[in-house]
Amino acid sequence: MKTTRLKSYLGGRWQDGEGEGEALLNPATEEVLARVSSDGLLRAPALEFARTEGGPALRALTIKQRGDLVQKTGALLQKNRDELIGLSMTNGGNTRSDAKFDVDGAIATLQAYAETGAALGDKRILVDGEAIQLGRSPRLVGQHILSTRHGVAVHVNAFNFPAWGLAEKAAVALLAGMPVLTKPATSSSLLAHRLFELLVEAQIWPPGSVSLLMGRAGDLVDLLEGQDCLAFTGGASTAALLRQTSGVVMRGARINVEADSLNAAVLGPDVTPDSETYDFFLKDVLRDMTQKAGQKCTAIRRILVPEALSERVRDDLADRLSAIVVGNPDTEGVRMGPLATADQKTAVLDGLSLLAKDGRLVHSRPGLKPEGVPEGKGFFASPTLLEVEPGADAPSVHSHEVFGPAATIIPYDGAAPQAVDLVSRGAGGLVSSLYSEDVAFVSEATLGLAPFHGRVFLGSGKIAEMSPGPGTVLPGLVHGGPGRAGNGEELGGERGLAFYMQRTAIEGSRPLIDRVLKLGGA
Amino acid sequence: MKTTRLKSYLGGRWQDGEGEGEALLNPATEEVLARVSSDGLLRAPALEFARTEGGPALRALTIKQRGDLVQKTGALLQKNRDELIGLSMTNGGNTRSDAKFDVDGAIATLQAYAETGAALGDKRILVDGEAIQLGRSPRLVGQHILSTRHGVAVHVNAFNFPAWGLAEKAAVALLAGMPVLTKPATSSSLLAHRLFELLVEAQIWPPGSVSLLMGRAGDLVDLLEGQDCLAFTGGASTAALLRQTSGVVMRGARINVEADSLNAAVLGPDVTPDSETYDFFLKDVLRDMTQKAGQKCTAIRRILVPEALSERVRDDLADRLSAIVVGNPDTEGVRMGPLATADQKTAVLDGLSLLAKDGRLVHSRPGLKPEGVPEGKGFFASPTLLEVEPGADAPSVHSHEVFGPAATIIPYDGAAPQAVDLVSRGAGGLVSSLYSEDVAFVSEATLGLAPFHGRVFLGSGKIAEMSPGPGTVLPGLVHGGPGRAGNGEELGGERGLAFYMQRTAIEGSRPLIDRVLKLGGA
Repeated sequence: MKTTRLKSYLGGRWQDGEGEGEALLNPATEEVLARVSSDGLLRAPALEFARTEGGPALRALTIKQRGDLVQKTGALLQKNRDELIGLSMTNGGNTRSDAKFDVDGAIATLQAYAETGAALGDKRILVDGEAIQLGRSPRLVGQHILSTRHGVAVHVNAFNFPAWGLAEKAAVALLAGMPVLTKPATSSSLLAHRLFELLVEAQIWPPGSVSLLMGRAGDLVDLLEGQDCLAFTGGASTAALLRQTSGVVMRGARINVEADSLNAAVLGPDVTPDSETYDFFLKDVLRDMTQKAGQKCTAIRRILVPEALSERVRDDLADRLSAIVVGNPDTEGVRMGPLATADQKTAVLDGLSLLAKDGRLVHSRPGLKPEGVPEGKGFFASPTLLEVEPGADAPSVHSHEVFGPAATIIPYDGAAPQAVDLVSRGAGGLVSSLYSEDVAFVSEATLGLAPFHGRVFLGSGKIAEMSPGPGTVLPGLVHGGPGRAGNGEELGGERGLAFYMQRTAIEGSRPLIDRVLKLGGA
Repeated sequence: MKTTRLKSYLGGRWQDGEGEGEALLNPATEEVLARVSSDGLLRAPALEFARTEGGPALRALTIKQRGDLVQKTGALLQKNRDELIGLSMTNGGNTRSDAKFDVDGAIATLQAYAETGAALGDKRILVDGEAIQLGRSPRLVGQHILSTRHGVAVHVNAFNFPAWGLAEKAAVALLAGMPVLTKPATSSSLLAHRLFELLVEAQIWPPGSVSLLMGRAGDLVDLLEGQDCLAFTGGASTAALLRQTSGVVMRGARINVEADSLNAAVLGPDVTPDSETYDFFLKDVLRDMTQKAGQKCTAIRRILVPEALSERVRDDLADRLSAIVVGNPDTEGVRMGPLATADQKTAVLDGLSLLAKDGRLVHSRPGLKPEGVPEGKGFFASPTLLEVEPGADAPSVHSHEVFGPAATIIPYDGAAPQAVDLVSRGAGGLVSSLYSEDVAFVSEATLGLAPFHGRVFLGSGKIAEMSPGPGTVLPGLVHGGPGRAGNGEELGGERGLAFYMQRTAIEGSRPLIDRVLKLGGA
């Protein structure tokens, strides 16, 4: 049987790379699903096609018109939702619930940015703030505007969210008016590829607006120019390489990074085990540890618990973890699938050995036999809970992200300063969460944690019913974090557009500026 | 006679480096004014002192309280204005007018940020936008805030504005609540050093808030952590090095760069030589070519003129340039001083050779004898005007910034698309200017230029009287530009604070968030 080849969509046409390329697997069974190669594909003309064809066509549209196309893209995904969910299960090791989280997240984000576009209306440039009087006369003013950059937006996505990751970046860039060239992580790119087939077939976007590079990036990122934008989600070591490419270092290409994060969940001192907030906390931790086998950049890795409650939390979590059935997502009753690749499994096992030096294992399943999987196959890891001693240094727990179904309980003294001190040892994270109804504690901890995070989630029992939990990234809120988390920022509603636009102060006489902006479509 | 040693102010005390160090010269006479060395000074404890002493002390103050200290700092400079201007003339090669531009710019910027602080009031965190409803219930919301980062703000300044460059960066960081460690460019650091002596003596700022590293940076920038910020103004090659330091690449330290820029002035097709706008245009070009001997990052380097007028502009500029007396700023009648260093002179002469390949010399003074200077001394360059043929490619003119008293006339067809195409070949600039009263032309050109610039200046005759010209950076407007210009952004009033703060989405129940922020001083 001939294996499917997944082509790239560059320069407005499907192109296949040379050689055998890499195999895409079903990570539960290790069955080969397709092959992909980008060897020999010319990146420079692909980027130039996007810049010279896609860019002008998108900039000719108003933001509202682009929003309409974003809306159509969301509707297209909705129409093909079942097929995309199926691919996510087969190629991504996702349970149906995990796959829905990814695909529905993509649809919801597209929908949200379609609404942002509609709200912004028929403009091409955005006015930023009020006109500023520059001297004694009210005639001389400065007015800041945002206008679309003339380059291409290159998106290098992570393997864990092939649908959402692609869509959330693309929606924002396209709404801002920049053409997109997406490079999905190879291992799970079956879904991204199919999504592009649908997109190309539907002819929603003007030629050059959307391009797809399957397989390796090659020299793609070295070819970036000063008007281009590079947005990356993935590991810190790749981020470091991308930050040092010549486009970024020499030519001022913009880069946004979302990288490692040791997200923490902090249980407040006021929470008793019989409370709704306690239950909410346990559910969030359990979801984050097992959803997508813990392969979520926002997943809780550190669980801070007041010392007096740590035994109880440990037992409750261990109980609930024991009930999680691990196996092939195809198999009835399975709650957690495999890791995405063999490399990820190795990294998780290595990471767990590192963490084990800092503490002790509370829950693990040596010799785990996943359900519905051929003997010895699949990249499975056991849900793993660790615990450190109160006051332990535990350097690895605070610095090494295990990107799998693992977390560590860290007892603390129940006061905000120690919680903040411990969490901030993570040196910058995407999101941390506080579970408490004690306003003084929550306030002190929130403002203590804020400089170290892109998001702080306040888990009170009062929102338990309606809460998506800290692990869910929402289009209206910023996503990203300082330091280790990559020092980047995505989404945040209209805020997200700024990365793809240039802020410019227009300085001159007020009547002239007013007319200039009116003519220009502000 | 013993040469003055300029010490660094690190860890709350004055410290001198080892060895002979480097000499600071009077660039008009090459007289040695002082020596400076940072060899052997320990950067790590200096940074740590700022982070652990200065940071908490500043964050304990409200923004308004910090603004009061910024105001006092401005008043201190004002009180010592004459002395500082004198140092700027002696060590910077500045005429009195150039020196005032620097020192008064510093005072005005401090004053403006003091006012920003007063307007923001007694808060410690800034609320960013409205609360966003996250689902069907109005109870669950997200609220973005900005809070002060916990690191140190390292400022690596350029030689051309020792007062303004130091003050504009410091005012913003300190108002945001971050301690500052300033490293001035060595050659002109006499002024920065004296400014720090005054600042330390006046005890305006809490210990650890302000530090000064004189001489070489050494490993300073490699020691940055994820909560630190690095702001640099200077050449593209240094910027490239700073972007590749481990703090930026590996630990997510923030970096802002303001680098090279081939700023353009475009004369519109409607402007006649007898108009006020024409005169305004000539004055701005002449000022930018000669003020500070052209050593301004915002100076006009490319002069776009409709073909029919290019001969007239060339003659008028050459005439006015001929009248510029070059020499020792000490000497009566001198309108333009020397370049800052021997290296700058070499770079300017090399650059002019490069530009000369693209066009022809219109005005230059071979064998220039500067006034009031010992024979053969001083780093003087002649005001130099070049011109290229209409339609010439002129690659160096569009890519090589000569940081001296030089500019090139580029004839164009008088239509906005060609003007935009030519200017944008500069691949990103700080500011370009349009001199025209033709609204359609100005609108098309402004919006065409905006994506490539941090500022666009509209020079109509109607603002000639009140205009500071495109070369003046104003605290209320953003300063920086995409691509070659460094892809950075400074100032812009309150906007400038964001670089020194972390944006965080606080997610939870609306009443809880309201109370958290109230308690936290929003």
